[in-house]
Amino acid sequence: MIKSLNNNILSENLIIDKYLKKLNFDKKGTFNFKNDAAYIHLKKNKKLVVTSDSISENIDFFKDDNPKSIATKIININLSDLSAMGVYPHSYTLNLFLPKYIDNYWLKIFTDELMKIQNKFNFYLLGGDISKSNKLSVSSTFFGFSKSNKIIKQNTMFLNDDVWVTGNIGDSFIGLQLLKRNYNLNLKQKNYFLKKYYYPKACIFGYKFTKYINSSRDISDGFVGDLTKMLDGKYGVKLFLKKIPFSNHAKYLLSKKLFTFNSLLNSGDDYELIFFSNFKYRNNIIRIAKKNKIKISRIGKVVKKLQIIDDSNNPLNIPREFDHFR
Amino acid sequence: MIKSLNNNILSENLIIDKYLKKLNFDKKGTFNFKNDAAYIHLKKNKKLVVTSDSISENIDFFKDDNPKSIATKIININLSDLSAMGVYPHSYTLNLFLPKYIDNYWLKIFTDELMKIQNKFNFYLLGGDISKSNKLSVSSTFFGFSKSNKIIKQNTMFLNDDVWVTGNIGDSFIGLQLLKRNYNLNLKQKNYFLKKYYYPKACIFGYKFTKYINSSRDISDGFVGDLTKMLDGKYGVKLFLKKIPFSNHAKYLLSKKLFTFNSLLNSGDDYELIFFSNFKYRNNIIRIAKKNKIKISRIGKVVKKLQIIDDSNNPLNIPREFDHFR
Repeated sequence: MIKSLNNNILSENLIIDKYLKKLNFDKKGTFNFKNDAAYIHLKKNKKLVVTSDSISENIDFFKDDNPKSIATKIININLSDLSAMGVYPHSYTLNLFLPKYIDNYWLKIFTDELMKIQNKFNFYLLGGDISKSNKLSVSSTFFGFSKSNKIIKQNTMFLNDDVWVTGNIGDSFIGLQLLKRNYNLNLKQKNYFLKKYYYPKACIFGYKFTKYINSSRDISDGFVGDLTKMLDGKYGVKLFLKKIPFSNHAKYLLSKKLFTFNSLLNSGDDYELIFFSNFKYRNNIIRIAKKNKIKISRIGKVVKKLQIIDDSNNPLNIPREFDHFR
Repeated sequence: MIKSLNNNILSENLIIDKYLKKLNFDKKGTFNFKNDAAYIHLKKNKKLVVTSDSISENIDFFKDDNPKSIATKIININLSDLSAMGVYPHSYTLNLFLPKYIDNYWLKIFTDELMKIQNKFNFYLLGGDISKSNKLSVSSTFFGFSKSNKIIKQNTMFLNDDVWVTGNIGDSFIGLQLLKRNYNLNLKQKNYFLKKYYYPKACIFGYKFTKYINSSRDISDGFVGDLTKMLDGKYGVKLFLKKIPFSNHAKYLLSKKLFTFNSLLNSGDDYELIFFSNFKYRNNIIRIAKKNKIKISRIGKVVKKLQIIDDSNNPLNIPREFDHFR
């Protein structure tokens, strides 16, 4: 099912044999990539969850970005979506749009990273296609299952539900800004944020929480943007502003007024999860987070007022600009 | 599950609400495109077949091509792959890479055509994503089931198997050539071939033949290229050259020596099917073809010699250049 490249330098067969074949983990349904399609054998009465995402040169990454970063991004943005649905990954397809500058070295680094993540989370490449292009783009469709067959939606919540968030907010956004402007940070700070931007790590433990949460979503349009999408005009949220989690590095930049609180809340692809959950499950959620070594913060509660408000019940004054493209 | 566009002219929400939402056929598993993923509910011990294909501006189509043609292509290249596996379509995802020139008119024509094909073959849009791009590209992942749960491979054949092909060979290739050079054809001829190029129609009846065939593949790299991939170095085929099906229009161009027999055999995305089948099923195959109004031709048989040979046992002298890109 890996198909159709006509490239002067790298032949389709070479790319498949040398770089992609190892990623199918010898699964029967991939037909060793010799057929134009593959199959998933479904043994139980299950819901197969499907999610799809794309990244593109000059939009989500630059031409000269490390292929390891591009691999990390295409996989983690999809893993993040599955996680938010309470689902663990099973397999995926890749659509590669390859320009002429893609060479053996690029493909090796790119597929080595795919392999590394596949091994870590135990999913395999089902197939895909390769086509020529002027710009590098990668689409991927991911398949996953929920252990309980319960699938978490993003728009289900009740009055007084706790609002939780995993990890830290804003680090990836700061990383992106460092590429655009000199902030006079030291190397350690710089590397910390750039790593968050180039190598996002999805919080993939969503499926561990399914029993206790009403809805969840991953942060891919900035925290406020994603929270707003979850609320969908049905409820509001009161945020405990001091509980919003920032890394120590980000706290330092906030204290130096190099970044504003609002900009960090409003931007960036953190690939952390926002949850809504009944307050009676607080201990369960904390327990699961501890067990899986996830930083988790209870940052607010669901309110009737159809706005995001602060501790003093004032509407959060955040301009709506969710441009997460460069 | 339709996500992430940030476009000055068309907002993500507008594209989803106005153009894409109607394509989900109100299926529960799509969450009305409000979640970042969708699901397929699988009720039986079934194999879910997955295939994925992409098309790109300046490679598979031109910027100014009718959006109806682009919709026809992305759907039919995928339907064709499913058909070759003996599978009927269930649902699909779309990844749209949209440049700034895409407007309401474009989206309307594009999605109207998707709707038309969906209605005809009864499958629905499961989700996907939208991203900004400099060039228009479309990826699509299709899902399908086989009625019998038998999935047809492309590399299974036996000595003396009949070789069948549906439809006609080469029309789409001629259409593409007419865009590059003036062949002094009349309007009727010209329109015939251009339609075959711009609006390919996959032979979607593969799943009706599953009981009687050993393998099949759709023609997407030229007849000889695809036949060679099926044989995979294990057998050869003796072709009955006079049985190779051409349209009357193509026969006329061949008679005028405007195109060579070899070029038609070697090029073009016809999206017809090549089958291998035991000769005892000849009547079954002819009966199914008649019932479904499919033109079908028995054009050869499987031989031991590891080559494609003609009626006089001479190797077919066809240069190997499978460039189906413009």
